[in-house]
Formats: sequence, C-alpha cells, structure tokens
Amino acid sequence: MTHLQGIAASSGIAIAKVYRLEAPDLSYNKTDVEQPEQEVKRLHDALNVSKSELEKIKEHTKKSLGDEHAEIFSAHLLVLSDPELIQPIEDKIKTDNVNAEAALDETANMFIDMFKGMDNEYMRERAADIQDVTKRVMAHLLNVTFPDPALINEEVVIVADDLTPSDTAQLNKQYVRGFTTDIGGRTSHSAIMARSLEIPAVVGTKDITSRAKKDIMIIVDGIDGNVIVDPTPEQISEYEQKQVEFEKKKKEWAKLKDEPTKTSEGEHVELAANIGTPEDVEGVLNNGGEGVGLYRTEFLYMGKTQLPTEEEQYDAYSSVLKQMGDKPVVVRTLDIGGDKELSYLDLPEEMNPFLGYRAIRLCLERDDIFRVQLRALLRASIHGNLKIMFPMIATLDEFRQAKAILNEEQQKLIDEGQDVVDSLEVGMMVEIPATAVIAKQFAKEVDFFSIGTNDLIQYTMAADRMNERVSYLYQPYNPAILNLVSNVIDAAHAEGKWAGMCGEMAGDEIAIPILLGLGLDEFSMSATSILPARTQLSSLSKKELASYKDEILSMGTSDEVVEFVKQKTNQS
Amino acid sequence: MTHLQGIAASSGIAIAKVYRLEAPDLSYNKTDVEQPEQEVKRLHDALNVSKSELEKIKEHTKKSLGDEHAEIFSAHLLVLSDPELIQPIEDKIKTDNVNAEAALDETANMFIDMFKGMDNEYMRERAADIQDVTKRVMAHLLNVTFPDPALINEEVVIVADDLTPSDTAQLNKQYVRGFTTDIGGRTSHSAIMARSLEIPAVVGTKDITSRAKKDIMIIVDGIDGNVIVDPTPEQISEYEQKQVEFEKKKKEWAKLKDEPTKTSEGEHVELAANIGTPEDVEGVLNNGGEGVGLYRTEFLYMGKTQLPTEEEQYDAYSSVLKQMGDKPVVVRTLDIGGDKELSYLDLPEEMNPFLGYRAIRLCLERDDIFRVQLRALLRASIHGNLKIMFPMIATLDEFRQAKAILNEEQQKLIDEGQDVVDSLEVGMMVEIPATAVIAKQFAKEVDFFSIGTNDLIQYTMAADRMNERVSYLYQPYNPAILNLVSNVIDAAHAEGKWAGMCGEMAGDEIAIPILLGLGLDEFSMSATSILPARTQLSSLSKKELASYKDEILSMGTSDEVVEFVKQKTNQS
Repeated sequence: MTHLQGIAASSGIAIAKVYRLEAPDLSYNKTDVEQPEQEVKRLHDALNVSKSELEKIKEHTKKSLGDEHAEIFSAHLLVLSDPELIQPIEDKIKTDNVNAEAALDETANMFIDMFKGMDNEYMRERAADIQDVTKRVMAHLLNVTFPDPALINEEVVIVADDLTPSDTAQLNKQYVRGFTTDIGGRTSHSAIMARSLEIPAVVGTKDITSRAKKDIMIIVDGIDGNVIVDPTPEQISEYEQKQVEFEKKKKEWAKLKDEPTKTSEGEHVELAANIGTPEDVEGVLNNGGEGVGLYRTEFLYMGKTQLPTEEEQYDAYSSVLKQMGDKPVVVRTLDIGGDKELSYLDLPEEMNPFLGYRAIRLCLERDDIFRVQLRALLRASIHGNLKIMFPMIATLDEFRQAKAILNEEQQKLIDEGQDVVDSLEVGMMVEIPATAVIAKQFAKEVDFFSIGTNDLIQYTMAADRMNERVSYLYQPYNPAILNLVSNVIDAAHAEGKWAGMCGEMAGDEIAIPILLGLGLDEFSMSATSILPARTQLSSLSKKELASYKDEILSMGTSDEVVEFVKQKTNQS
Repeated sequence: MTHLQGIAASSGIAIAKVYRLEAPDLSYNKTDVEQPEQEVKRLHDALNVSKSELEKIKEHTKKSLGDEHAEIFSAHLLVLSDPELIQPIEDKIKTDNVNAEAALDETANMFIDMFKGMDNEYMRERAADIQDVTKRVMAHLLNVTFPDPALINEEVVIVADDLTPSDTAQLNKQYVRGFTTDIGGRTSHSAIMARSLEIPAVVGTKDITSRAKKDIMIIVDGIDGNVIVDPTPEQISEYEQKQVEFEKKKKEWAKLKDEPTKTSEGEHVELAANIGTPEDVEGVLNNGGEGVGLYRTEFLYMGKTQLPTEEEQYDAYSSVLKQMGDKPVVVRTLDIGGDKELSYLDLPEEMNPFLGYRAIRLCLERDDIFRVQLRALLRASIHGNLKIMFPMIATLDEFRQAKAILNEEQQKLIDEGQDVVDSLEVGMMVEIPATAVIAKQFAKEVDFFSIGTNDLIQYTMAADRMNERVSYLYQPYNPAILNLVSNVIDAAHAEGKWAGMCGEMAGDEIAIPILLGLGLDEFSMSATSILPARTQLSSLSKKELASYKDEILSMGTSDEVVEFVKQKTNQS
C-alpha cells in the first residue's frame, strides 16, 4: 500500500485498476536522404493526418464539453498550419538532406527551447502546444500508434505523468472512473476538464507514475486529494463508504435543485452561475442556478481570425437569455487583452499584462469593437432578463464613459426603430482595489456591483495568482480582502443597490458563511458548486453570522479568520 | 519662430544657440575577406577601444553624478564582453568570410530585432543597450569620430533625437545650458540625469530635430515644457525674465536650507530625502534635508558579479549614518526581483514581475541574503539614527517573520559581543493595497509606516506605471488613493506611531497640501524638491487643510480633487 497526497482537482471517489497512459516511443534515427522532396512529402502527409485527427478531437470535445474546451485544439491546429514552424522544417530537410523525423524534432525543439527559455507564461504555453502536436506528427512519421484513451473499454483509473488536453477530451466517463497525475494544478486544463466531465481527479502527486503499476488497484479521492495504490481491503471499504456518502450528498443536493436558496431563517439569497457560452446554460439549469451571475463574452472573440459580427453576438446573447427565461443574466462586456490575446487585434505585448491594456481600457479606446457588442446586447435584451456590467473599471470617469456609449447605442437603435427594453440594470465588476475603496462614490451611479475576487485578490495582495512563487499570498480570507468586500456591500446597500460576487471565492465553503454575514446578495459560481452551496446555506443563520462581522474584520491574518469560521460553523 | 510643446523633464530656462548632436555616418560596404583572422583582430581592437572609452565615461559619471547613474555603463561593458554576442560575430566572419563591419552589424541587428520583437520592457532595454554600444564599436571599425559632447566649449542648447546615457553623462554644465529631444519621457535615463545635473531639459517634443537648425537661437523652458526655436526679441526678454524669477525662487528656497520645516501656524513636519548611495547624502544636506526618509539599498547589490559582503554593506550604511549625524535615516531592506534583476541570483523571469517574487518575499525565502544585510545594518546602527523598514509587506505574517529574523540577528550580535543600539524603530513600507486597507491591524505591531506611492498607486489602480497605454490611470490624486493614505495615517496616529511617505507624490505641489491636511508626519522626496516643498509648506495652514479632509475623501474623481486643491491654495 502506498499513500500519496496530491491536489484535489475534481471531487468524487474512484476505485479501479490502474491504466497507464504512457507516451509512445518516439525515438528515431537521423539519416541522410537523397531525395529530400520525398521527405517533405512524408512530412506533409503526417501533418495532414494529424490535422484531421485534431479536427475530430475538436468536434468530439465541442459536443461533450462545449466550445470553450474545444478551443485548445484550434490553437493546436494553428500550430500545424503555421508557416513559421513548417517552413524551417522543410528548409532543414532540403538544406541538410536529413529525414523528416530529424528535421521535425530539431526544429520543434529549437522553438520549444526558445519559448521555454523566455520563461513567460504565454510563451511556455506556446511551447507546450508545439510539444503536444509535434509528438502526434512524429508518431505518424514513425508509424507508431498514438495512445488513444477513447479506446478504453473497462473500468479504470488513468495514471499518467500529465494529461494533455487531447487526452482528457477523449476520456469516456463510462469507463474512466478517475485519473491522477504527477504534475498539474487545480487550474490546469485537464483539471478544469475533469470537473466539467465530473470525473474524480487528483493531480500534482509528484510521482504516482513511479508508484502505480499497470492493473494494480488504486483509489483516487478527489475530495481530499488522496491517492492510495494497492489499498488494503479495509481501505477499499472505507473509500467505498466515502463514495456512497458522496453520492448520497449529491442526491441531497439534487433535491434542492428546484428550491429557492434560503438561509436557516428562511431568508433568500441568490445563487447564480458563471458561464462562457450558450452551451453552458444547460448545466446551470440542471444544477438549479437561479440566474447567470457572470456571462464571460470573451469566448465569442477567441479562436477566430476576425472580430465576431453583431449578428453572431446577437445570436449567442439571445440564446442564453431565452434559455434562462425570466431569470437574470449578467453579461460582462469584453475583457480581452493582457494575458488574453486576440491574434487579429495585434495588441502590444506588455511587461505586466495583468496591470495593462485590457477590458474596459481597451474597449473605451477601441469603441468600434465595444459598440458592436453593446448593440448586439441591447437588441438581445428583449429576449430575457439582461443586466450588463463593465469589467476592470478603475475610475468613475471610465464607468461614465462606458455608460454614455451604451446610452448612445440604445438611442441609435431606438431611432432605427429596433426593439430594445426600456430600462436595463447597468453595473460594474469590482475587481480593482480603487473601486472597492471608494465603492460609496460608485454606488451612487451604478445599478449593482459584482465583486470579481480572482483579480481583486491579486491586485490587493500584489501577487500574480498564476505565479507559484507568490501563490501563498493569494488569500481570499485575508482580512484586507474581507474589509474591501464588506465596504462594497455596505456601499451598495446604502444606495439601495445590490452586490454580488462572481469569483471563485463565492462558491467556497469557508467564504460562504463570511459573505453571508457581510450581507452579500448574490453568489455566482461554477454550476457544479451551486447545489452544495445551497445545501450549506440552508444550515447557516445570516443573523448569527452578521454578529461576527466586526470581529472578523478586525482580525490580522487569514489563518485567524479560517480558524474562527471553522469553529463557528463546525467545519473540520 | 516655432513653438513646440514637450515634456518638462528638468526645470529651469535655457536660452542659447542650437548644437545638433547627430549620429555619425556608420554606413559600410559588405566585402568578402581572404584573411578572416585579421578581421577578427580588427573586431577585438574596436571592442577594446570601446571598452576603455566606456570605462572612462563610467568613471567620469561616477564622479559627476554618483554610482547609481554610472550603473548603465556597467551594463554596456557587460554587453561588450558577452560571449553570446561576440562569439556569433566571430563565427560569422569566419564562416561567411565577411568583413568585421558586416558581421557586427548583421549579428547585432539580429539580436536587437529579436529583443525588440519580444516587446517586453526588459528586453527592449537590452536591445537599446546593444544598439548603443554597437554604434561605438562600428565607429571605431570605420575610423569615424563618435560625437563627443564633452568637447563642447561654448554656450549651447543640445538638440537631438534622443540622448543616450553616455551622451548625457558627458555634458559639461558650464557650456551646455539645456537640451531638448524628439523622444523620451520624464522617467527616461536622460531626464533623470538632467535633473541631477540641474540642466534644464524638455523631452518628447516629437520633431524638434526637424525644426531646429545648427546655430539658430532656441529657448528651452524646462518648467512648463515649452521649446521656442528662433524666438522674437520679445520672447527672449520674456524668458530671460522667467529665468531671473526662477533663479530668484531658487535663492529664496536656499534661504530655508537651515530652517526647520514649518506650516503657516508654525507646526513642524519633517522633510526628508530619498537616496540610493552614500554619495547622495551631500545633496541631501546641501538641500536642507531633515533626514533620509528612504535609503534604497538595492544599489549595493547591482552591477556586481556576486552578493555584497557584510563589510561592504556595513561601510555603506555607516557612511550614510555618520554623514547624517543625529538626523534620522530610514533604510529600506533589499527590494530586488521583479523588474530589478540580479544576474548572479538567477531569478525566474515572470509574466507579471510587478506582481511577483521580489523584495520581502524573496528575502524571507533567501534569508541567507537577508540576514547579512540585517547584521550589517545592526552593526552600523551605533553610528547614527537608524530606522529599518521592510518593503512589499502584504501580510502581518510577513512582517512578523521579518522582524523575528531581525531580532535573532540582533541577539546573535549581542552574544558575539558586538555593539548594537538597544532599540531601533522597525517599520514597513505601505505599498500594497492590502496593508493600507487594514493599516489599523498593522499599526499595533510596527513602529512607523512609510507609504510608497509609486507602487501603491499602480496596484490600487491595477495599472503598470511603466506602461504608456494605461498611464492615464496612474492617478496620485484619485480619491481611492487618498482614502487609503488617510486610513494609514489615522491608523498610525491611533497607536501613537508616525506615518511618512517616500513616493514621488510626497514632493508634488498639488499633493503636499492634501497630505498635510490628512496629517502626514514625514515627507520624503528627491533632494532637489526639499527647498521648494519647505517654501510651499510655510504658506500652508494645516488646520485649514484638515478641515477639507472629509470633503476631499468623498469626491469621485482625480480631476475634482485637483481643481478643489488648486482653488483652495491659489495655484493656477
């Protein structure tokens, strides 16, 4: 028996045999060739087969997981068509008279080393993309079978160093009970996909691949991050019990699907979901979401060669609004730039993209792009309960400008004889410390606030949440964050407005009691967190939690807060 | 007559003839060579001459401007010795059988394009360094005279597209009355050097080089950013008048050199200076500084091949403390990392260095480095009035850890029988929003706060202050910033502690009345701002300004604040 502790990436318990997903042997001999044209042809054949495979995986992913997850394969397909990569490979074949394998490997490695060497997140991701697709092309050149998790037809737990997005997308939930990897974190692609697929997963175990042999029994505990290789019978029954309890809990949660969210006193708070595409709405409704608290519209703009048209956007927004009926849908206008690049916009690379030219900053300057989105939203408004909010507002001026542009477009549409709703709530994200500090001033002019904790925490703590070296400073329960959140809620209420939250924190079981006590009106989270949150809220007394407010806000450290909340809410 | 508006980079008025500082003709013919060894030798000769010139310029700069300004030439010298640049040039000569000029130019351009292409601030600077030194080497290869501003021997105003640091360092104040350039900003190297040299300068005029011919008269108004080419006699006498007034003002300021800083009611506030090296102390004393509010210690660590020893540091700290006598010296412990790299530390490159692994974050992990600095400081403490503060504190835990390490080292020194002062004020920089928000909690444990506005503003507004696209968000007078500053001051006073400020804002004439009204105890600024600030403060009533506090803190925008302050303090 071996016990490993990893990162709980997707909850649930899996107990099954190990299936080792290993990279195929891609070693090759470098040879001189006499007919380089033939090698160039072999190269292009391998590229074409790889492309058609990736197209298929992309389609499959779109169906099983939605457009957003399929996006990564668009990036991979772009790599395979990139002349800046392909041309040097051809040149190398012709100049050095070497076989396609050697030319591919050496050229790809040059790019990978270069991008890795730059050691910047975006470049590292490009390096990973090239690595992923190069392997596939190499396998075709060598006539080696590439591992195909889609072929698995018995119950297994997958063990791998890492899962590529293409691996994860192909997992068949019926047979793959769970997976565990050496590397990765909670926010890696495979972890996010696992949660969407509801496959239990533990990542970042460091050395599961050296511990778990083929066909041996393994337990993956995606609730607490445990992995047990070759478990004792007692452990198996213990975890079977945990599995039963988890399923029971899920059933309990499911009962609340069509119930309103109520605290123990029966006071209503709203539980909404964060979505990225119209396809996500189904999951929101299945999980009993009372609204969409954050519709990220970036996805419409990504993986394209040009800006989406007003019609394309109108269709997407209308679809979400119609599906949600009279439930509120808060749409966040375009938050692009910074780390989220659009190839066709030719944005500058920046030294500190998280502190850069993005979101509303870009939209106010490029109001040609912004106006198209606003028109599409306003036209779609008649199909449901739309609210609009602007991202990355830092100053009142920015909010006023954005709102003025919205009003102009509304007037133009009316003048054109188009149908738009008479009035529409217009709010803003609170994700920049400045706006949380003077929320009182903003509250006079907005209809609502939605606190974006992911960014708010990283700016307030001055710590890049993607940077592992400073991730210890990403502290949602830090009293500084809680004071800002409280200030925003109080400011909203003083003006008769509402305040929501749409960051990760809103669905967190330590944060929920605190936020309830601070008076948060709307909690928006990933769809799968809604029912657990509703269950938790039903046992919490808002009045009691509110009585702790001053004490919590005067605390000095995150640890103090966590300990206090756990004690008061009987969490272990 | 032509009037151009640029950026006032160094105050004062210059009226003189135009001296065009132009790049020499560095065009060359690419030729095949039969004896590549000879070309390699020519290359190394040119490199060696360039190196010895740069060594001289570096020494000259050290004397006239101090170590910190000379730093750029250490970087240039490193480029000339970098095998990653030199080896490829040699290889090119040998492989392609071309002359040294072609090999140098093509290789350097490849690197410059590559670094520029990456388009990240640090890489762009490296590109600029390579460009600067390559020109010098090329001039020697071509036997072309490189412009030598040190040779100017009549009164002139220099007009150039841009001034390289080596140009600026060579300016002789006696003859060079001022300069103006097409490009550059207030924080470019040449602008900073101009302020240290007290040479009037206007930068960023966009096209002064196409407007100002050799020997024509020109006025450079470094107070308001005006440049007038071929002025009318009326304009000349108008600006002569402005010049006289400026000199008069400077004399008035000088009168206050040995006076304490007092408000109109006679209440004392402390005016201190920010310094980087022991050489800077002279300027502090000459400008009537009542203390050093920020001694940046990074400089000891930069431009070296290894960490500074305890003795080197002890000498530097002791020198500053002795020179300052009983005046307070606030030393900030090492703030390295992020954009400030140390080659010998091998720090990771980061996607958002301003939100990364730096300052106290690095010092707590690398406490081997930190402890050496603390020992040196503690040993030096007996030579003056030392206070220590930690940079980039985000959480109480970090402050506690840093202070515990300080106490440990103090105890060790006492055990070793070394002399250290019995007690020492230990404070922290407030530059991360989190600490400003819960300053009340911190105030219980620190001896003082020093607000670092440069960083505090950029994090609070989530806008990189080096990024031109979002520089409009760098708003010192934004009510959010003022609310945080006020919160810090109030928190300090409630615990009987003092609060200072050591960012650019502390010396700003709009900010000074606001900060006085908020109750700031210590203003630390560049030495040359102290006397103007003392003059301004003598006419301000703290009591009156304090009465505006609530009104200012409730305002919505930066513009409102500025307008209000200008009106109340009769500034135009």
